[in-house]
Amino acid sequence: MSQGPMEKKNFLCVGLICVDIMNHVEKFPTEDSDNRASDQYWQRGGNASNNCTVLSLLGENVSIFGTIANSNELGFLQDDFKKYNISFNNCPIKENVTCPLSIAIVNKQNGSRTIIHHNRNLPELTSDEFSKLDLKNFDWIHFEGRPSVDEISGMLQIIDTFNEKYDKKIRTSVELEKKRETLKLLADRADVIFVSKGHASMLGYNKKEDALLHYLKKCRPKATVIVPWAEEGAVGQVQGQDQMFHSPCFSPDKVIDTLGAGDTFVASCIQALSRDLPLAHALKIACKVAGFKCGIKGYDGISKNLIV
Amino acid sequence: MSQGPMEKKNFLCVGLICVDIMNHVEKFPTEDSDNRASDQYWQRGGNASNNCTVLSLLGENVSIFGTIANSNELGFLQDDFKKYNISFNNCPIKENVTCPLSIAIVNKQNGSRTIIHHNRNLPELTSDEFSKLDLKNFDWIHFEGRPSVDEISGMLQIIDTFNEKYDKKIRTSVELEKKRETLKLLADRADVIFVSKGHASMLGYNKKEDALLHYLKKCRPKATVIVPWAEEGAVGQVQGQDQMFHSPCFSPDKVIDTLGAGDTFVASCIQALSRDLPLAHALKIACKVAGFKCGIKGYDGISKNLIV
Repeated sequence: MSQGPMEKKNFLCVGLICVDIMNHVEKFPTEDSDNRASDQYWQRGGNASNNCTVLSLLGENVSIFGTIANSNELGFLQDDFKKYNISFNNCPIKENVTCPLSIAIVNKQNGSRTIIHHNRNLPELTSDEFSKLDLKNFDWIHFEGRPSVDEISGMLQIIDTFNEKYDKKIRTSVELEKKRETLKLLADRADVIFVSKGHASMLGYNKKEDALLHYLKKCRPKATVIVPWAEEGAVGQVQGQDQMFHSPCFSPDKVIDTLGAGDTFVASCIQALSRDLPLAHALKIACKVAGFKCGIKGYDGISKNLIV
Repeated sequence: MSQGPMEKKNFLCVGLICVDIMNHVEKFPTEDSDNRASDQYWQRGGNASNNCTVLSLLGENVSIFGTIANSNELGFLQDDFKKYNISFNNCPIKENVTCPLSIAIVNKQNGSRTIIHHNRNLPELTSDEFSKLDLKNFDWIHFEGRPSVDEISGMLQIIDTFNEKYDKKIRTSVELEKKRETLKLLADRADVIFVSKGHASMLGYNKKEDALLHYLKKCRPKATVIVPWAEEGAVGQVQGQDQMFHSPCFSPDKVIDTLGAGDTFVASCIQALSRDLPLAHALKIACKVAGFKCGIKGYDGISKNLIV
C-alpha cells in the first residue's frame, strides 16, 4: 500500500477453528481404489482461522476467537497459531468434544479441491463468551457467518453498544459464505458484508451484480457490500452511493491449491478497507492476493510485499 | 473353537502403525464439491496393527512391533493400543518424522472404501531393532510384507536361529499384500504365507487357485499357503500335500465397511492355525470373521463368541 511504513491494526476474527488434512493427488481418485498422495499435511482451517493467517502474513496484529476442542488436534492447533503469531488466548477450550475436521483432496492436474467436512459436537461460541473480551483491544472485528446466527447477532450488538459508548469505533464485517438461508439475518448487522458465490447461488442469483444489488437493499445505510466470484473477479458497492466497482480476477500461471482463496480475498479486503483505501483499490488488492494464493500450496508466501 | 476354555497364545505382529481417518459419506464425492461426512473418526491402521486389534478381540495376548512417529497422532495411537490391550512397549518412537496417514472414504450406499495414503518419512523397522526383543515371550510372529524386504528377511532369520537353539518353537507367517514384486523374496521365509488378491493380480494371476499353486512352488517344505479372494472366499494348501481346501465367503446382510477385512481374515486364520485346527476349518473361521467384520463399522463387535 502506498502510505509508507504502516502502523499495525488490531484485528479479531470470530468463527470456526478446525483442521484440514490436505491430500495432493496426481488424479482425483476413482471409487473403491487405493491411492497414494504425492503430498499430505495438516493445515489449520476454518474461515475465520484462515482469515487470521492471511492478515498476520500481511503484517497485522491478529487474534482468533472461537471454541477449540481439547482433542487429538489441540497441540497442533496451538503450535500453528503460535507459528503464525495469532493470539488465541481468549479461545474457550471445550472438553470431551471432537475437533471439526475437513479432508481436502487437491488434484494436481487442475488445482480442484474436494472437501469432506465433519463437525461432530463442537459447541458454537456464545455471545456471553464474547461479552468477556476487552473490545478496546481491537480496531476491526470480522465474523464468519456460522449457523449460530442469534449468537453472532448478539456479539455484533455488543460491538454496537461499545461503539455508542466510547470514542473509539470498532469496524465490523461479516462473511455470508455458506448455503444457509438464515445467514441473511446478519446482512444489516455489520459495516461490511461479504457474500460468497455459493451463498448467492443458494438464493437464486447466478450473477454477482444481482447478488450485490440484493444485499444493498438488506444492509445498513452506508454499509459496503462485496461479492467475490472466483474466476470472474469481484464487485462491491457502498449503500447509498451509485457506483458499482469491479475488479477482474488475477489468475496465477498455474493453479496449485484453491482451498482458502475466498478467505484470502476477505482478509486482504478488510485490511485494505481498515486503512481507508478506496473500495475499487481494496477489491483489486484482494483479487490479486487471492489469485496469488491459488498459485501456492497453503498460505506461506503471502506477504505485505504483495500489496505495496 | 471346540477345545473348551482356551489358554491364551502370545502373538507378535510386525509392521506399519498408521492412522486411518474414516469418512462415512452418503455418496462418493464428485470432484471439486463440498461434502459433509455423516460420520468421521480416527482409527488406528496399518495391516499388522489391524491384525493385533482382531487377535486381541478374539481373546489372545497381543504385541505390536513397528516404528511410531512422535507426531500429532502419537497420543491417539498409544491410547488406542491401551484400549485394545495391545502391548506396544517395544516399539521404537521416532523423532522429527510424520505419522503415516490414510484417508478412507466409505460409501454408505455400497460399503466401498476409497483410500488415499501417505507415508512421508517414517523409517522402517530394522532387524537390528528386532534382535533386541525377547523372543521367548512369543508363540507366533506375523509379518506384514513391507518394502523393507531385506530387514524382514533378517528378522525371520533371527527367529529361525532361535528355533534351532531352543526347545520352544515360534511359528511364523508373512502376508504378501501389496503390489510389490520384491515381496516374493519372502515366500520361503515363513511357515504360513498369505497372498492377497492385489498381490496375486500384480503377478498376473486372476484365479486364486493359480496364485496358490505358484506360491506352493516358492514356499518352504510343509509351509501353508493361503489365498483369500474377497467375495470368492479363500483357498489354502500345505506344501507337499495334495489337497487344496476352499472356503466360501460369508457376506453380511448389508456391507457397511470393508476396510481391514483382509487383516481380519489373516488374524482369524493365524489364531486358528496356532491352535492346530485343520486348515479347512481355519479357512472357514477366517472367512466367517472377515465377513462379519464387513457388516460392522471398525472392529468392535468381533469376539471369540464368533468362533465357538
